[in-house]
Amino acid sequence: MPVEMARRNYIFDTIRQVFKTFAFEPIETPSLENLSTLMGKYGEEGDKLLFKVLNSGDFMKDVDFGQDYHKVAPQICERGLRYDLTVPFARFVVQHRDQITFPFRRYQLQPVWRADRPQKGRYREFYQCDADMIGSTSLLNELELVQMIDVVFQRLAIRTCVKINNRKVLAGIAELIGAADRIVDITVAIDKLDKIGLDNVRAELAERGLTAQQVAALDPVFALAGTAAEKLDALDSIFASVEVGRQGVAELRELFGYIADAQPQCQVELDLTLARGLNYYTGAIFEVKALDVQMGSICGGGRYDNLTGIFGMPDVSGVGISFGADRIYDVLTELDAFPADLNRSAKAMFINFGPAEQRACVAIAARLRAEGIAVLIYPDQAKMKKQMDFANRKAIPFVIFIGESEIANGTATLKDMVSGNQTTMPIDQLIAHLK
Amino acid sequence: MPVEMARRNYIFDTIRQVFKTFAFEPIETPSLENLSTLMGKYGEEGDKLLFKVLNSGDFMKDVDFGQDYHKVAPQICERGLRYDLTVPFARFVVQHRDQITFPFRRYQLQPVWRADRPQKGRYREFYQCDADMIGSTSLLNELELVQMIDVVFQRLAIRTCVKINNRKVLAGIAELIGAADRIVDITVAIDKLDKIGLDNVRAELAERGLTAQQVAALDPVFALAGTAAEKLDALDSIFASVEVGRQGVAELRELFGYIADAQPQCQVELDLTLARGLNYYTGAIFEVKALDVQMGSICGGGRYDNLTGIFGMPDVSGVGISFGADRIYDVLTELDAFPADLNRSAKAMFINFGPAEQRACVAIAARLRAEGIAVLIYPDQAKMKKQMDFANRKAIPFVIFIGESEIANGTATLKDMVSGNQTTMPIDQLIAHLK
Repeated sequence: MPVEMARRNYIFDTIRQVFKTFAFEPIETPSLENLSTLMGKYGEEGDKLLFKVLNSGDFMKDVDFGQDYHKVAPQICERGLRYDLTVPFARFVVQHRDQITFPFRRYQLQPVWRADRPQKGRYREFYQCDADMIGSTSLLNELELVQMIDVVFQRLAIRTCVKINNRKVLAGIAELIGAADRIVDITVAIDKLDKIGLDNVRAELAERGLTAQQVAALDPVFALAGTAAEKLDALDSIFASVEVGRQGVAELRELFGYIADAQPQCQVELDLTLARGLNYYTGAIFEVKALDVQMGSICGGGRYDNLTGIFGMPDVSGVGISFGADRIYDVLTELDAFPADLNRSAKAMFINFGPAEQRACVAIAARLRAEGIAVLIYPDQAKMKKQMDFANRKAIPFVIFIGESEIANGTATLKDMVSGNQTTMPIDQLIAHLK
Repeated sequence: MPVEMARRNYIFDTIRQVFKTFAFEPIETPSLENLSTLMGKYGEEGDKLLFKVLNSGDFMKDVDFGQDYHKVAPQICERGLRYDLTVPFARFVVQHRDQITFPFRRYQLQPVWRADRPQKGRYREFYQCDADMIGSTSLLNELELVQMIDVVFQRLAIRTCVKINNRKVLAGIAELIGAADRIVDITVAIDKLDKIGLDNVRAELAERGLTAQQVAALDPVFALAGTAAEKLDALDSIFASVEVGRQGVAELRELFGYIADAQPQCQVELDLTLARGLNYYTGAIFEVKALDVQMGSICGGGRYDNLTGIFGMPDVSGVGISFGADRIYDVLTELDAFPADLNRSAKAMFINFGPAEQRACVAIAARLRAEGIAVLIYPDQAKMKKQMDFANRKAIPFVIFIGESEIANGTATLKDMVSGNQTTMPIDQLIAHLK
């Protein structure tokens, strides 16, 4: 509906405007990708949630339908619908590598599709708003992402906390407790800390095959407290003999230094329990929470050192974030923080009194529209009450009367629908007033 | 690619801005519709071109694959991709009838999909830009569509001719020659006049079963000449005993009167051979051609009296137009009429001299970005030549140097990349200059 469109566009426009001032360039990728590009990129669960598109023509030719449906599907469907913006972006970068000047900053606002059961906050089709910088390892990129998050949510009037961690620190922790090969299990479990609590995370780690000793060895990490600097100092000693961990700490220290200089208005927090589910992250990871609303993360991202590797272009480091437009929509709704006049279809409506008056309205409307003012001429010569009811129902703030005397005098009568005040004025003044 | 995006967005933004000043409201519909909503709405050829989406889970359960693939497809695919914006709009209006205030003006800019063989000017995924007004029979609506066409193409600097006809006139012609039931055959053949010439249209009409007498009876219609008013006068006598034809003439006369008053800059022409393929039109029909480029129609539309009838809501008249964004893109490319600075990623780039200088750049960049100026800090401390090469390749018009002396003096050195001029100035002046 128009009101939802206006609200969503308010979010998109805010995000897009910020992306632009940080010199990100827009791209779009096709909705349909080769299924082979998508399969295996989002885990087993992701493969199930891919929408597959039936081949055109006789899709049944030479297909043996005596097999399991999992095996039949890719034979009758060559293409699938975009599942996220990251994998198509990686495919795009590899395909257009010769036309792209690196480092490359792109943003992309497009719908993605998941064959999920729809429920509150989870849709089959929803928009992602991604910004990535690729081809540079500088931590200035990470800083700028934090700045963009800060400015976007300032403009949307949502108070936020940006949580930051680094995958190398998590790798260091895994190595520290002698379970370097179990980093995925460890991060998946740690990632749930917020939701299920420390005891359940411990239980899950044990279930995933860590020894009691290994689980206990994580306690000093969970116990870290204080400012980011204090936590990082403590980690430096914990990681005395763990190279990758120290590297993660050094990166975090540099980034937090940049952030301290830049003084964002949002809260920024080092959260060592932040892991994020996706396993292609290799450096910084981000997650943004709204402070005044109970809601999952409304923005997230991180650095990946080899995203394009799966498409044959190794060693290209990138870092990016994705704004969750639908959750931001829900936060703004709960905060009642959408601007009030977003869904204004017309600034003014002309009452239609008949052919001669309509003709005068058309001429004046053309002048108003040329000035960028949205106006409507009621199209039918309906009863006055019907026309006024329409203006009221559409919450149009002004109604314009052009009758015989207005035509004769070159004037218009403007009625303010809120105050009820009615003023007759020359057309130039009408234009100035509505502008 | 970003350059294509910038150009396409220039077209979209122009169209959207005009739609808005005419008080049209935006809606979007889901990409996936029930296949039953789409099938049978676009003719046999259209059904073939629908992208069908495989059901999730075990799509093979209880399906007999021993049948023709045409029969199997709808059993294993409940949903299909949007084929145009008109049928989903009709479905939307019927579904939301209780929330909509009529007359309702909506616009919609979304991609549609067709399982066609891709070729120049024909894509599997392309955007349509539609505006429809529904729930009013006033011909003022038709006038406003012509005005919107006029303003859009004025702003895009494309000289155009708007061709107008009325389906009732075509129905009158069919009735006149005693072939009222053959109106579809007649309009399909007439529609090709531009492409295949009069003789071939005559041959096709004969092929489609019209008698030689009937084909000959069309000659006075093809022979009509002169201004719109002259043609309409002549038609009034031809239609002396054909009620529907006279009604079409009356509508055209009223509309052309409105247009004469409104004085659009585009050419407007009554074209009695204009038929348009789609058969749901019942009144005015429109088609727009670019004057300076050889190209199919770049915009088209018409009035339909019963579009929502197929979804159980009869007798709702509407009229709408659809801009062909891809063809408009091609026209602008051929005319070389895209604004020159559309694809400017950044107005200025800061050279990165090292940590201390970068820190100063971050602070200045934040101020510039807050003013809406797109700037970039080169993220790595690369060699000067590499950084300057990057700015050149990206066509960034200004480069900013913040070195030791600039930091000490609170200044910036701005280099104009076109003239080569270099000026050192206070930061406030830098902001004012770039703004």
